[in-house]
Amino acid sequence: MTAKVYVTLKRGVLDPQGQAVAHALGRLGFAEAKDARIGKYIELTLDGGGSREEVEKRVDKMCRDLLANLVIEEYRFELVD
Amino acid sequence: MTAKVYVTLKRGVLDPQGQAVAHALGRLGFAEAKDARIGKYIELTLDGGGSREEVEKRVDKMCRDLLANLVIEEYRFELVD
Repeated sequence: MTAKVYVTLKRGVLDPQGQAVAHALGRLGFAEAKDARIGKYIELTLDGGGSREEVEKRVDKMCRDLLANLVIEEYRFELVD
Repeated sequence: MTAKVYVTLKRGVLDPQGQAVAHALGRLGFAEAKDARIGKYIELTLDGGGSREEVEKRVDKMCRDLLANLVIEEYRFELVD
């Protein structure tokens, strides 16, 4: 099973990397790019069994324990067989 | 309109950051996490008009020109109104 995890900065948290990307796009002629927010996309390969509910609980704990910094980031994930 | 862009390392390209995450998950008790691949998730806020096809072409060019390094990365994106 694969877990696709998306970690993004919370609304209101400054994103200098995103600003740099938006400015660079503007300089490259993409004036329509008004804003960019950069997050992480993590693909986890999961082994072993357990029901989908159990796996969801485990991945949720992985996000809280390691993958996301809950002070400034939020996360969501989906499980793919 | 918002473009959600996913940039991932091509299959076969070494991902030391992902390996570190997989090892860390193992040490934290998540033995089922066999592998992790880390990519970027970019949310672009787009202004202005144009048909969906035109916007798709522009975002594709943004990915090729700046957002992805096509030597080692691949990308996909979706447009959300």
